[in-house]
Amino acid sequence: MPKISDKGRLMPESPIRKLVPYAEAARAAGRTVYPLNIGQPDIKTPEVAMEAIRNCTEKVIEYSHSAGNISYRKKLAKYYQNIGINVDENEMLITTGGSEAITFSLMSCMNPGDEVLIPEPFYANYNGFAVAAGVVVKPITSSIENDFALPSIEEFEKLMTPKTKGIVICNPNNPTGYLYSKEELNQLRELVLKHDLYLFSDEVYREFCYDGEEHFSAMNLEGLEQNVILMDSVSKRYSECGVRIGALITKNKDVINTALKFAQARLCPPAFGQIAAEASLETPAEYFTEVYNEYIDRRNFTVEALNNMDGVYCPTPKGAFYTVVKLPIDDSDKFAQWILENFEYKNQTVMVAPATGFYATPGLGKNEVRIAYVLKKEDLANAMETLAEALKVYPGRTI
Amino acid sequence: MPKISDKGRLMPESPIRKLVPYAEAARAAGRTVYPLNIGQPDIKTPEVAMEAIRNCTEKVIEYSHSAGNISYRKKLAKYYQNIGINVDENEMLITTGGSEAITFSLMSCMNPGDEVLIPEPFYANYNGFAVAAGVVVKPITSSIENDFALPSIEEFEKLMTPKTKGIVICNPNNPTGYLYSKEELNQLRELVLKHDLYLFSDEVYREFCYDGEEHFSAMNLEGLEQNVILMDSVSKRYSECGVRIGALITKNKDVINTALKFAQARLCPPAFGQIAAEASLETPAEYFTEVYNEYIDRRNFTVEALNNMDGVYCPTPKGAFYTVVKLPIDDSDKFAQWILENFEYKNQTVMVAPATGFYATPGLGKNEVRIAYVLKKEDLANAMETLAEALKVYPGRTI
Repeated sequence: MPKISDKGRLMPESPIRKLVPYAEAARAAGRTVYPLNIGQPDIKTPEVAMEAIRNCTEKVIEYSHSAGNISYRKKLAKYYQNIGINVDENEMLITTGGSEAITFSLMSCMNPGDEVLIPEPFYANYNGFAVAAGVVVKPITSSIENDFALPSIEEFEKLMTPKTKGIVICNPNNPTGYLYSKEELNQLRELVLKHDLYLFSDEVYREFCYDGEEHFSAMNLEGLEQNVILMDSVSKRYSECGVRIGALITKNKDVINTALKFAQARLCPPAFGQIAAEASLETPAEYFTEVYNEYIDRRNFTVEALNNMDGVYCPTPKGAFYTVVKLPIDDSDKFAQWILENFEYKNQTVMVAPATGFYATPGLGKNEVRIAYVLKKEDLANAMETLAEALKVYPGRTI
Repeated sequence: MPKISDKGRLMPESPIRKLVPYAEAARAAGRTVYPLNIGQPDIKTPEVAMEAIRNCTEKVIEYSHSAGNISYRKKLAKYYQNIGINVDENEMLITTGGSEAITFSLMSCMNPGDEVLIPEPFYANYNGFAVAAGVVVKPITSSIENDFALPSIEEFEKLMTPKTKGIVICNPNNPTGYLYSKEELNQLRELVLKHDLYLFSDEVYREFCYDGEEHFSAMNLEGLEQNVILMDSVSKRYSECGVRIGALITKNKDVINTALKFAQARLCPPAFGQIAAEASLETPAEYFTEVYNEYIDRRNFTVEALNNMDGVYCPTPKGAFYTVVKLPIDDSDKFAQWILENFEYKNQTVMVAPATGFYATPGLGKNEVRIAYVLKKEDLANAMETLAEALKVYPGRTI
């Protein structure tokens, strides 16, 4: 029997999905399980998107252009121009989800063995994409004590080697909800210029910024036109995670032309997804106001509920719809499993994502979990009540 | 300005798409251009698929299971069982097109530097997927003199090294239309067992077998349960290339579990595509009879028309909807460009795919082109007439 590949062995298991069998067992036992573990919003997909799909009159679902439909790219360029990001339809490739934008970016820019610096905790799937590309992830720890602000540039400098080729940021951040300030981004700008690095900027949560804070795109960092690659997705913006439409955007022609070759090999992004994504650009403004109000409400409720629990600390995230919260527990992996397997309150339990899966440094995140506030408020209320009760009796409680 | 990656430089340009600007110029000059260069059928997508899309009542287009919707996998397993391939829903992953099935297969099974043997001419994008995975392609030349039959096992043995980990076949073959016999597959079987290799079998043209010939799947080769990985797609079967739904199928649990980790990193295959693909399984039998009759007709017409041209030889392909044909020309790349740029007959011209793009051995394919008979017969008739006239006056004609 032939062996599987080294990459195959190195590919991380999804830190979230390993809890699924325990959640299924809890559900099979008749319990309500509140999923706080995954960024799957319950917000409706915009009606304009669904209508475009229902009105599809194509006779043959053909391959599209490998870079994505030109009609979509032109409209998408306008979307970016409207938010102050000056790009045209030739400076972007439509990808199969943000996932593919990340893969194409790493494959186009980094050699196997090259190193990329990423502030941790970070979106766990960056690990998988890095393994697939043979790229080495060097984590730089951000800390809950600073509400997960950007680590100091000295910390970045310390990890630099001749193999360092890029930095990945996610802004607003998944999993922490932290929104990088213009000042922080300008510090990164200098570092990137000094060492001639790529700056891979994942901005899929751009529309989710709270408390009057403004999102500043890495695309607008002066003098970084050849360095910045924007990785984007419609999944969260329009609550259409399943359509699998993202984008790779850069002013760097070499990168676009190179990524296009990877795009040509896989032929094209999904046709129906492109139809939905293009129509989504016509989503009325009220949709976003409603979504914004809903999330602000959910965030405020969740953060307050968490901070009211004994021994719990939750920063106030300024963006996205996640928060990494410190719990008085010995081991977040054990806790996440225990609460599904051994705990119930009013026949309810919750699923949380152990933060260990978001840190690359072994041992970190053991007393932190990520909570996605993607449920409606009465569900969040039940989930918070359940979590509070669970913490009271969890055998591995530390304080 | 940071450098692009070595892989990026090595990624081949699509051999077909580089002709696109010339075709666009010809169209802009008012000429009709018949595209014989690409496997984009004009056959209608089944009505059941389009109906399922138009009737979609989902409110939130959510992530699906990373392995694909269980309802689809269960029905797809039945489809395979009905054609004699005994697999269940846990022995498959739904992928984003056949493309992703190939990528996941190579990434899961092969290390960078490992070698894969592929009879050439072969589907050009195998090159791109191999570069992405860091895998080395070793071509074994099949010849138009033998109608592109499987090269002898001795030829395979000659190229074996300790790095050889797999063989890729495409059956029925793109680009040649050759259908491997059970005997040929059994020869491969022995080779695979002897050297403990993976056999990656691309069977996306399974439904397109002519003249009463039967398709024999690599999945049914005795004793190869742990070696064979079937790579499949709905693109051609249901003429829905744009939905981007394929499948990776194997009895090898290690491979399925490993590929699932790659699948989890990219979250899920496209939701709408899965809806269309699942509904397509209910396509009435008459659809396939009509398609079959149409293709037989087109093939017979095309092959006869080609063989009636002076100095041209076209084998009779037993499957798929391509043929690689020998032309009396000096250089197929030059010819393909010339006919678009400098030739017209009754204000028409044609686009063909130079066979050079399908050979990995430099210099081969210079007097061959691939023709996809995916147009309706009156268009094919015009295209063949135009090609015949072009060959008469092409300055690089050799005989």
